[in-house]
Amino acid sequence: MSPDCSDLIPALRAIVGADHFLEGEDTTPYVTEWRGRFRGDALCVVKPADREQVAALVRLCVQHGAPLLPQGGNTSMCGGSVPYLAEHARPPVIINLARLRRIRRIDPLNNSIEVDAGCTVAEVQAAAASVDRLYAVSFGAEGSAQIGGSVATNAGGTGVLRYGNTRDNVLGLEVVLPDGSLWDGLRTLRKDNTGYDLKQMFIGAEGTLGLITAVTLKLHPRPTAQAMAWVAPRSLDDALALLALTQDHCGASLNAFEVLNHTQLEHVLTHVPGLRDPLPQPVAWNLLIELSDRSDDAQLQARLEQVLIQAGDLITDAALARSQAQCEQFWRIRSSVSEGNKKSGMSLVFDVAVPLIQVPAFIARADAAVRAICPAVRVPVVGHLGDGNMHLVIVIDWALWQSLSEPQALLQTMRDAVYAIVAELGGTWSAEHGIGRMLLKEMQQYKSPVELKLMRAIKATLDPQGLFNPGKVLPA
Amino acid sequence: MSPDCSDLIPALRAIVGADHFLEGEDTTPYVTEWRGRFRGDALCVVKPADREQVAALVRLCVQHGAPLLPQGGNTSMCGGSVPYLAEHARPPVIINLARLRRIRRIDPLNNSIEVDAGCTVAEVQAAAASVDRLYAVSFGAEGSAQIGGSVATNAGGTGVLRYGNTRDNVLGLEVVLPDGSLWDGLRTLRKDNTGYDLKQMFIGAEGTLGLITAVTLKLHPRPTAQAMAWVAPRSLDDALALLALTQDHCGASLNAFEVLNHTQLEHVLTHVPGLRDPLPQPVAWNLLIELSDRSDDAQLQARLEQVLIQAGDLITDAALARSQAQCEQFWRIRSSVSEGNKKSGMSLVFDVAVPLIQVPAFIARADAAVRAICPAVRVPVVGHLGDGNMHLVIVIDWALWQSLSEPQALLQTMRDAVYAIVAELGGTWSAEHGIGRMLLKEMQQYKSPVELKLMRAIKATLDPQGLFNPGKVLPA
Repeated sequence: MSPDCSDLIPALRAIVGADHFLEGEDTTPYVTEWRGRFRGDALCVVKPADREQVAALVRLCVQHGAPLLPQGGNTSMCGGSVPYLAEHARPPVIINLARLRRIRRIDPLNNSIEVDAGCTVAEVQAAAASVDRLYAVSFGAEGSAQIGGSVATNAGGTGVLRYGNTRDNVLGLEVVLPDGSLWDGLRTLRKDNTGYDLKQMFIGAEGTLGLITAVTLKLHPRPTAQAMAWVAPRSLDDALALLALTQDHCGASLNAFEVLNHTQLEHVLTHVPGLRDPLPQPVAWNLLIELSDRSDDAQLQARLEQVLIQAGDLITDAALARSQAQCEQFWRIRSSVSEGNKKSGMSLVFDVAVPLIQVPAFIARADAAVRAICPAVRVPVVGHLGDGNMHLVIVIDWALWQSLSEPQALLQTMRDAVYAIVAELGGTWSAEHGIGRMLLKEMQQYKSPVELKLMRAIKATLDPQGLFNPGKVLPA
Repeated sequence: MSPDCSDLIPALRAIVGADHFLEGEDTTPYVTEWRGRFRGDALCVVKPADREQVAALVRLCVQHGAPLLPQGGNTSMCGGSVPYLAEHARPPVIINLARLRRIRRIDPLNNSIEVDAGCTVAEVQAAAASVDRLYAVSFGAEGSAQIGGSVATNAGGTGVLRYGNTRDNVLGLEVVLPDGSLWDGLRTLRKDNTGYDLKQMFIGAEGTLGLITAVTLKLHPRPTAQAMAWVAPRSLDDALALLALTQDHCGASLNAFEVLNHTQLEHVLTHVPGLRDPLPQPVAWNLLIELSDRSDDAQLQARLEQVLIQAGDLITDAALARSQAQCEQFWRIRSSVSEGNKKSGMSLVFDVAVPLIQVPAFIARADAAVRAICPAVRVPVVGHLGDGNMHLVIVIDWALWQSLSEPQALLQTMRDAVYAIVAELGGTWSAEHGIGRMLLKEMQQYKSPVELKLMRAIKATLDPQGLFNPGKVLPA
């Protein structure tokens, strides 16, 4: 099929209507990475109104052999949601899902919800809350990230310890496949063993195997009681011992077990107004612990207090939140880490996970390795300690950064050093952010040939022309 | 490659040694369905000692174009674990995993365990308990079902409401692929977003895409407190209202919410010695409710009692278990349903799931439909009501059964009637048992062409010669 754009563009425009078709300079917000790190190039941006328009757009692209990029809220941490063009490659058609935003159905008895892909994660949370239920996936960008994108990237966040990743919260999908057919897999069942579980292929595939137009999701009972503490463990090893103790005492009511090192808290307190250290003295490691369940606050706070008393020597200080406002204050510190780091300098964020027992070794070794490469860096650490997912951050003063002759080479040297340690400890170099365009080199380097071969075989089977989100996930 | 068995058999024997090679009559236990419903035919049975032997066996079979069948504990409910030969097809080599039975590693801090595929599910549960942890998948055949088979079939059971299916409890897999290569995917991480999640393809594929040699699994905090009640709801609708009420009050501590109708309980009490009705009067519907958490029995029992008081008119009677022995007695009734039904006559077990709100309609309509076809049947119902998975059973007196001229045709008529209702209500006709050889017709009939096409494409990609567990899952 000949790639005749003069023919394609009017046909695309006809499907969505002129009001929902953008080209040239109007595409800038859609082709620019949200932090402004790079921009790509698109043939055009189309904003379909419904799944039928999506399917028509896909069929048209496939007929023309034209690449396409499914786009949600454009909040990818690794450049997955904007075009990335290999040399001589054709710019893709961006199919933006923002207009598919119906909450289709909520079933509180069945604890399930069916929503269009373009709803934001926060809108899904709110819809669940309106019927006294919880949609349990929660992360920083939830106000603008779309649910379809969160499924396509298997988003993680702060609730994984208790409720799992996005994958664990998906019951069914509606997907436009690369051949233009629509797969209606919108089940709401907890159990369905009728052949291969096809939805799993599209979850976390970052739009490279199909385009998600709607999802059905699990809901949970909405917790009515909350208890939080800000805790100083004696060491990172003792933090892990405290995690085990908390799980022993509180079982499934443990919601979050987050960690920030001294440098990370300092960056937040220095640069984000209105926040103060919950503890009287700065400490090496800070833990934010949250319990929630269907009892009441007083009962749950008593339980958390008991755990902290039992912790004895494992901790040197602790502050229990005594009000809803204090809980919110604790979470505001946690959610301000990116802002704090950004204002401190150029930051390179790692998204690694290692088996829990290896977390202290990983932090010590990675910190030493990056300082050996560039002694002037600061190394804030923030992480979902409960599930072993650590965001080690390398911050370089803006002044130093601008004086570097080969800044990208320096970053790559530090990446290589950290990932070598991760690999040795049985960990992963992308725990929750995905691959996008930014980690293609790592895919090539750290994935076994067996895995790459399998992934490529699946890609070739589902998308033989290689048109869906080209240049992402799989290295060329 | 020419199918030269005279060459293949000695080579297979040489890999495992003569003591672990069976042919002819010795293969009977391995080719016979465990209920004795049918038997297949195998070229031979080999029992490898380790994954290297498994890989060598697979490579040899692939070189000879010889079909092979990965076999665990042979407890499949749908004939997936014994050979099924299309006409003129070659009998497969059965690779039995019983000798791969090491508990490789338990990590209580990380809440994970790594085990060989041939360990039984009960052995994995015991290993977890030995370090004060819970492996949460539990089902009737757990004493003989192997963990590899339970992963290959995505086994369900009584813990799904709280802990999910087997799929939700798998962290990683080691798989011998159809090209003879070994994929080491034995992660223990809670988060890993590095490309397509390959393990998902093999979970629930019933050995048609690869052979699982080891798994890493999630563990949970082991509950220390238990509370149980045997409850008579006024109706099945009220049972669902009670489920919602229990979830509202008890959140994640709700472990099991099982249902038995009057006929089902009667079959158990009539035919299984040593059991008695927990309630003074027979009732239409019986619920078995279990809570568990890390508090203590008294506290949890008080909580359950409170829920039952709040239930008011939803229930007509209830018995709270006051001891560990009483809890076990309640569970013994639940786990004796197959025995009770078997002794009552020929039984046809359905394994359906529908959205919760549809359960009462499904039961009423399916019951009426099968009685319309054969008024003499009895219809016990037992189900995991909490997740909508209902085992409606059709029992036909042995005398009547033996007098039927076309018994299989009658069963098929009843299957068709029930599955038509399931399809209409948005349900599934195989919730937890899988497909095996017994539900191939239903795959053809109820799966959309889009899904069948996708599944066949995946099968052809991974196993282009179609050698792995031939005749299963996908209709020809």
